Amino acid sequence: MAVRVAVAGASGYAGGEVLRLLLAHPEVEIGALTGNSNAGQTLGTLQPHLLPLADRVLAETTADSLAGHDVVFLALPHGQSAAVAEQLGPDVLVIDMGADFRLKNAADWETFYGSPHAGTWPYGLPELPGARAALEGSKRIAVPGCYPTAVTLALFPAYAARLARPEAVIVAASGTSGAGKAPKPHLLGSEVMGSMTPYGVGGGHRHTPEMIQNLSGVAGERVAVSFTPTLAPMPRGILATCSAPAAEGVTAESLRAAYAKAYADEPFVRLLPEGQWPATASVYGSNAVQVQVAYDPAVHRVIAISAIDNLTKGTAGGAVQSMNIALGLDETCGLTTIGVAP
Amino acid sequence: MAVRVAVAGASGYAGGEVLRLLLAHPEVEIGALTGNSNAGQTLGTLQPHLLPLADRVLAETTADSLAGHDVVFLALPHGQSAAVAEQLGPDVLVIDMGADFRLKNAADWETFYGSPHAGTWPYGLPELPGARAALEGSKRIAVPGCYPTAVTLALFPAYAARLARPEAVIVAASGTSGAGKAPKPHLLGSEVMGSMTPYGVGGGHRHTPEMIQNLSGVAGERVAVSFTPTLAPMPRGILATCSAPAAEGVTAESLRAAYAKAYADEPFVRLLPEGQWPATASVYGSNAVQVQVAYDPAVHRVIAISAIDNLTKGTAGGAVQSMNIALGLDETCGLTTIGVAP
Amino acid sequence: MAVRVAVAGASGYAGGEVLRLLLAHPEVEIGALTGNSNAGQTLGTLQPHLLPLADRVLAETTADSLAGHDVVFLALPHGQSAAVAEQLGPDVLVIDMGADFRLKNAADWETFYGSPHAGTWPYGLPELPGARAALEGSKRIAVPGCYPTAVTLALFPAYAARLARPEAVIVAASGTSGAGKAPKPHLLGSEVMGSMTPYGVGGGHRHTPEMIQNLSGVAGERVAVSFTPTLAPMPRGILATCSAPAAEGVTAESLRAAYAKAYADEPFVRLLPEGQWPATASVYGSNAVQVQVAYDPAVHRVIAISAIDNLTKGTAGGAVQSMNIALGLDETCGLTTIGVAP
Amino acid sequence: MAVRVAVAGASGYAGGEVLRLLLAHPEVEIGALTGNSNAGQTLGTLQPHLLPLADRVLAETTADSLAGHDVVFLALPHGQSAAVAEQLGPDVLVIDMGADFRLKNAADWETFYGSPHAGTWPYGLPELPGARAALEGSKRIAVPGCYPTAVTLALFPAYAARLARPEAVIVAASGTSGAGKAPKPHLLGSEVMGSMTPYGVGGGHRHTPEMIQNLSGVAGERVAVSFTPTLAPMPRGILATCSAPAAEGVTAESLRAAYAKAYADEPFVRLLPEGQWPATASVYGSNAVQVQVAYDPAVHRVIAISAIDNLTKGTAGGAVQSMNIALGLDETCGLTTIGVAP
Repeated sequence: MAVRVAVAGASGYAGGEVLRLLLAHPEVEIGALTGNSNAGQTLGTLQPHLLPLADRVLAETTADSLAGHDVVFLALPHGQSAAVAEQLGPDVLVIDMGADFRLKNAADWETFYGSPHAGTWPYGLPELPGARAALEGSKRIAVPGCYPTAVTLALFPAYAARLARPEAVIVAASGTSGAGKAPKPHLLGSEVMGSMTPYGVGGGHRHTPEMIQNLSGVAGERVAVSFTPTLAPMPRGILATCSAPAAEGVTAESLRAAYAKAYADEPFVRLLPEGQWPATASVYGSNAVQVQVAYDPAVHRVIAISAIDNLTKGTAGGAVQSMNIALGLDETCGLTTIGVAP
Repeated sequence: MAVRVAVAGASGYAGGEVLRLLLAHPEVEIGALTGNSNAGQTLGTLQPHLLPLADRVLAETTADSLAGHDVVFLALPHGQSAAVAEQLGPDVLVIDMGADFRLKNAADWETFYGSPHAGTWPYGLPELPGARAALEGSKRIAVPGCYPTAVTLALFPAYAARLARPEAVIVAASGTSGAGKAPKPHLLGSEVMGSMTPYGVGGGHRHTPEMIQNLSGVAGERVAVSFTPTLAPMPRGILATCSAPAAEGVTAESLRAAYAKAYADEPFVRLLPEGQWPATASVYGSNAVQVQVAYDPAVHRVIAISAIDNLTKGTAGGAVQSMNIALGLDETCGLTTIGVAP
Repeated sequence: MAVRVAVAGASGYAGGEVLRLLLAHPEVEIGALTGNSNAGQTLGTLQPHLLPLADRVLAETTADSLAGHDVVFLALPHGQSAAVAEQLGPDVLVIDMGADFRLKNAADWETFYGSPHAGTWPYGLPELPGARAALEGSKRIAVPGCYPTAVTLALFPAYAARLARPEAVIVAASGTSGAGKAPKPHLLGSEVMGSMTPYGVGGGHRHTPEMIQNLSGVAGERVAVSFTPTLAPMPRGILATCSAPAAEGVTAESLRAAYAKAYADEPFVRLLPEGQWPATASVYGSNAVQVQVAYDPAVHRVIAISAIDNLTKGTAGGAVQSMNIALGLDETCGLTTIGVAP
Repeated sequence: MAVRVAVAGASGYAGGEVLRLLLAHPEVEIGALTGNSNAGQTLGTLQPHLLPLADRVLAETTADSLAGHDVVFLALPHGQSAAVAEQLGPDVLVIDMGADFRLKNAADWETFYGSPHAGTWPYGLPELPGARAALEGSKRIAVPGCYPTAVTLALFPAYAARLARPEAVIVAASGTSGAGKAPKPHLLGSEVMGSMTPYGVGGGHRHTPEMIQNLSGVAGERVAVSFTPTLAPMPRGILATCSAPAAEGVTAESLRAAYAKAYADEPFVRLLPEGQWPATASVYGSNAVQVQVAYDPAVHRVIAISAIDNLTKGTAGGAVQSMNIALGLDETCGLTTIGVAP
């Protein structure tokens, strides 16, 4: 019998992407689709690429409209998930694609989001050591942020193998869909095309504590993270360029072996052959992660680079992957490692 | 038992796209992959987005390497398909994604391609009246050109219903993948981004006789076609803006009714609701076609616009759709109407 | 003594572009800069590319702030120019970059803009026969729309020489800056990149009556215009693909001769050599116009194509060129025909 | 009397850009234009954006064709400049936009370029302490690489003021024109649009030793540089995100003061107001540099970011600025700080 799924926040980019994936998922039946300001409109107007759902009308996001589903995906603005989740009952699998339940440390939440911490749910990054076990059978899942997904998958094998010192320096470029669908002047096509620009420089980005949490958990010590995000002139994709001082005795071979081991059985992560580098175009629309790692002897640093699709593996694909694990389905069900290129 | 498929020309854009689709096709097993200058290289190097095939090595395009398959897709330069097809035997389904077997009129072929005409195969545009019957059980299929696909689907319902006069004026914008993967200076990213430019102006484009053939066949009289293609700063997509003088008595309602009727049962074509216009982004990576039609009373013209993905519905998706029909599979098998957006 | 210039609406795209050009104009001194919602902000925040003006603060758009200048450029929303112009006095040169004073026919204005017609000012397209004489010494100038600039310059020589019949079919692609700086969802970078889409199809675009006015004036008979604008994934540029049935006896040679004659002495228009086609990239940031024309014997049509930068020659460059004429300066003063490419 | 200038390598991107700037330079007369494979072609075909030079024909790059000029710009492939320069005589100002004469250390040159070191010329980055004096009256100038320009201007004030430790980590994004005009598959528009990808990872990029040379010279100790370049989907622009461990006692205020002092009198460098970040779009086509600096207390690092146009300030604009100094002209002559945006 099909798993019945609702999506709250179906008019935005995360909501649209999870619907795109669920439409291709063989075990799922799409139920209620809700929105707030867009309630009453057809999905054909709001998400014209989702042809099979074109005639569906958005309901309001209420407990009633979301009732009666096995799974509810929340694609809501930060801070709104807890109130909705409470009304859904403990037997419903609630998957929050927002930030509300990612952080373990309440003080970090309050510093970066300025509101009371709602709690911590099992973390939907199955590749992270220990994460799968926590997801199996869980009824609550916090989907990672897009940048933390890219950065954690680039760096954690080095920390897990104790090959890097705990001072990571990260510069990541993201496509504009990461900034959402609410129209703001600096996100206009006229402004974005032809331009690269940083933001949240100097530690201000809300995804920084999540990266620290992930990497520190693996490293067994606190990893300091210098994170600079940049906005790139493309709709989708994250390229994360990460480096850290190498631990004593690291060699190119030991690094590569650590990554090969970490990702040997991962269905979505590909450690590229030596000499080939990740490209966001190669993972466009897919749940795949391309990873490459190098040792720079001149500066004795580990350099690890990953490419993901911020909306797929970075948001909705990671969410579906985690749903599959929680429900006991094949982890890859409904997901692909094939990008749309060129 | 799975249908065994080979792809000749697997390193180019059409070859890569047909592989992308075949990987998602439940009835197909991918066999030989061949190339010429790239023989011996891995697909992981040549098509890094096709992760599941990353370790496959390209063979040379020979009768031997292509032998033993149920279906062979040819993604070869114009003029090379006939020689390969001859060696494949009459029981193999050969699907030519090149131009060689599209035109019925040998003189047209010789004028536009400058070589002897190889023949005419059943035409792989199932939506065109009469085409499906010719495809069923066929062992040879000529896949339409990308522009003729977009233009024919935009205009044929008007001609079929005798609502337009036989003088079509067409301006189409194509993404750069339509120009192929061979590196040429004017196709460099530096040249293409930020630029729109026409080419083949004044009747010179090789797709013009194919449009005339399709539209004339439906109209029952020769349709003159003024066709201007333009290169747009995007990797994929065709937007075809087509118009023609309206026949006597045409109204907005009669036009819309003709299109609604033509596309009522078509799984891949969506006549958009009034007021909504096709966008290439909405069909990115999908086999869907968005169509809209209007009547402009001030100039008494029919204006019909379509958007397709030039590599999917315009090439490899149309090829797979036709393969499905030829093999007696569900026509939509392995294909989607869901675009990757934003 | 320098000409003292004010710009009303300095925070938008047209206002920013006219400032970019005026900063390079040797005879001009930039005076008041005004805005409405942005009054009080620095130009460094609003137009960060205009470094020399970074510390200037926007005043409110009032008669007082605009007083005391020789020239006032109005870059205001449609319908607001008349009220401001009235307060500026008859000795000030007022150059309206909005639509308010372009149309001669009040009924056309009311049909397309839904408000009372404000009047008609000398038309700032110097290349149009008769336009220069009306601009010399004028104290009021209506700057043409961006599409009418591109289309008129592509087609008028054919009509002036009676080589085309009065039924023009035009499809134009515009960069997104033509849609302005007010943030709207469909103009987001995420939506725009990778997408071509039409709008205002079927005669609805407000620039259509202006094209009819220009071409009819030259043709000596009413020219019917079918105009379809499309939005292209680039910040700037218009490519206008225009065609019309050829008059009796037209040849490629007679067409080319007519265009060569029309543009022999024009400093900003370049009729390209045969075989070369206009590209928006070539005129990026410049006041140049690239034009090419062809005769298609198979359909007996004239095909004329132009490329401009919609913000430069299509708006602010045309405005400065007209200002130069009105003030008796060298027409090319402060303007360039050199594009920024690649 | 005008300075007579020749450009060797006028068909490429650096050659085209220096011509774009020289056309706007009031003291210069453009003489010979030379190429190799393109000799005999018109510039209108090769550089269609340079309308005033459209009818000029490229000569071959020989001593004869370059004779009789006051200044010769070399825009040649690496390794070819020395042979040409030798033939030009000691009284001609030779400005090499290639890499041949940038490095002081012959071993570095040989390691990264694999050929004998040609020598070292005065370095054309006037903002670098000591550089202006060496340029005044010089007859030989080595124009810096585009990445070293961006990186040096982002970081040197921190090193000059002893506010950063000598372990710089740099990730830079470049537009595709930095890769030149020779057509290669990975530079096709189809590949580039929508994609971010790194290259030369792990210390392999040839610009690394030049950065080390510049920063070490200012720091008074050897600065280790970890440099990762990435290719961004835009034609022009470099965004350099640079960081280094802060020296003891650094504060946000001391950092800002050091940058404010370093750039107080620089005509082309703008230290942005606090809270505003560099964007490549803002310097498009201009010789301006946008710089911003921050101190991240959580990781005790200095983060400095710059944006330049790689072809203008990063190549041809830096070359013209240095030419002005060498000739005793106003340093800003013919150059602008006004970008073409949006």
